[in-house]
Amino acid sequence: MHDIAFYRSAFLSHMKEKITAKEPAGLYEPMLYILNIGGKRLRPVMVLLSAEIFGSSYKNALDAALAIEVFHNFSLVHDDIMDDAPLRRGKETVHEKWNINTAILSGDAMLINAYQLFENYEVHTFQEMAKLFTRTAIEVCEGQQYDVDFETRENVNIDEYLKMIRYKTAVLVGASLEMGAIVAGAKNSCRKQIHEFGCLLGIAFQLQDDYLDAFGDPEKFGKQVGGDIIENKKTFLYLKAIEQSSIGEARQLEHLYTIDPRDASQKIETVKNIFELSGAAKSTQKEIEKYTEKAFALLDEIAIEESQKMILRSFGDSLMTRTV
Amino acid sequence: MHDIAFYRSAFLSHMKEKITAKEPAGLYEPMLYILNIGGKRLRPVMVLLSAEIFGSSYKNALDAALAIEVFHNFSLVHDDIMDDAPLRRGKETVHEKWNINTAILSGDAMLINAYQLFENYEVHTFQEMAKLFTRTAIEVCEGQQYDVDFETRENVNIDEYLKMIRYKTAVLVGASLEMGAIVAGAKNSCRKQIHEFGCLLGIAFQLQDDYLDAFGDPEKFGKQVGGDIIENKKTFLYLKAIEQSSIGEARQLEHLYTIDPRDASQKIETVKNIFELSGAAKSTQKEIEKYTEKAFALLDEIAIEESQKMILRSFGDSLMTRTV
Repeated sequence: MHDIAFYRSAFLSHMKEKITAKEPAGLYEPMLYILNIGGKRLRPVMVLLSAEIFGSSYKNALDAALAIEVFHNFSLVHDDIMDDAPLRRGKETVHEKWNINTAILSGDAMLINAYQLFENYEVHTFQEMAKLFTRTAIEVCEGQQYDVDFETRENVNIDEYLKMIRYKTAVLVGASLEMGAIVAGAKNSCRKQIHEFGCLLGIAFQLQDDYLDAFGDPEKFGKQVGGDIIENKKTFLYLKAIEQSSIGEARQLEHLYTIDPRDASQKIETVKNIFELSGAAKSTQKEIEKYTEKAFALLDEIAIEESQKMILRSFGDSLMTRTV
Repeated sequence: MHDIAFYRSAFLSHMKEKITAKEPAGLYEPMLYILNIGGKRLRPVMVLLSAEIFGSSYKNALDAALAIEVFHNFSLVHDDIMDDAPLRRGKETVHEKWNINTAILSGDAMLINAYQLFENYEVHTFQEMAKLFTRTAIEVCEGQQYDVDFETRENVNIDEYLKMIRYKTAVLVGASLEMGAIVAGAKNSCRKQIHEFGCLLGIAFQLQDDYLDAFGDPEKFGKQVGGDIIENKKTFLYLKAIEQSSIGEARQLEHLYTIDPRDASQKIETVKNIFELSGAAKSTQKEIEKYTEKAFALLDEIAIEESQKMILRSFGDSLMTRTV
């Protein structure tokens, strides 16, 4: 076993070797660009880590890890068009740097390229990977669609929200870990367990993202604190606050989520106050804990060595104790 | 063996059964819509036909045929966004009826769904289908990118144009026929030959489309005659006319392809005159013949019964003798 920094650097070398300039440039340059503007590479690292935990060498998992990262970046490119986002990781998004048509078509090519990377595996492994990948990719699309739908829906409930983030974000974490298990030829029951472990951790991670967006340390949080509030995004904090507030406060919160003041600082302050006074902040923290604990409880049941569980537990801890 | 009408109707029944309303509606309704607004279903029919020609039952090829049709419609949905096209087969395009975001995301889901349809095949067949599909899909994206690039490039030559239509249009015809061969377990050499037969026929078909766009019978041609001229599209006719004209005429033609008059009838008339006087119209017809003959010559070499070749020949003839 190696440490996370080692896996990340092995992955980056592999990506550099495999993703190169090709013709037509209009199709492949945006792919190179988005893949090289950084990111934490959490998903591909999880593929490599999981492969070794289930008894293979990380080397066998490099192409699967790259497929996951290429897919993740495909979804960012298309999502950024839909969200009309100008920046991604502090750099211009693909549709800003080029144009929407380029972003659509390069994204399409990335999705197809991800499938191509599985071709380097033996036929049964190929099939298992492609099936898992397809199921996951469809769920991610469905999650994105639910997210879009929620923007214009008034009556989203918390279960629906949790399903949305499971599909949009968490299943790809689950699939990353399961990809590694497939590389290592782990049995079906283990594959299912590690997948669910990843999903639970992914949900906890996303809920924490919601929490930190409002209550994170502005010095450490990468994005603008209060960004979700400015964009009137109905996150877990918001939905919980509506649920737990008095009718008067709920009305006030709903009203605040219809306005877009030029200077948002007062709005952010008021909303955060309601999040705290209603108990929604506390409830969100509890929910994060609940999902993290569920993930770790499931981890205990997986038929792998205790030392391997330790590695996954510390990886999970490092994700969840971040303040950024 | 059955006739084309039989295969078309068998395909449509299968599609109706397999493509049904699902949640989230925002993702799946556009898919149902675009798949059900018609079209000649040429590609899926070719999959079924080819499967029977190589000795299988068309029934085994239905899911592969559906994958090809779903992919084809995915590419229409995304291309229509890029071309800003309001209509497709006389009906609103997906991004017009819904919006661009919906068209992007539904298109993505269709591409992924196409892969899912191969999962119903045995593992080796699955792998061969997915690999052919991936290679084809990447080529289609590259062809689309070349097409986009050509819009703003001055110096496109005829070889580049032929490569573009091979990728954008013809390889999917080749892949449709090869899909059927894979279903039937045909040997590799046959697969390659039927693929190339389809590509050659596909190029001939696209060149004929270019020709009919200018010289088709307005009564019979489905689209507006002169549409490519109005849009200043550098088709085979245009490139050939530039090549074969005097410098003066070429300049005039180039100039005509920079203007967008409100009433295009005069422009269309002048351009068509240059197409004829330069000999480009005749050269295009010769090129169509050349590709059709090459396709049929290749067909002769394939190791299948003469009676099967007859069927493919008459299918090819029916495609190429259309006036619409």
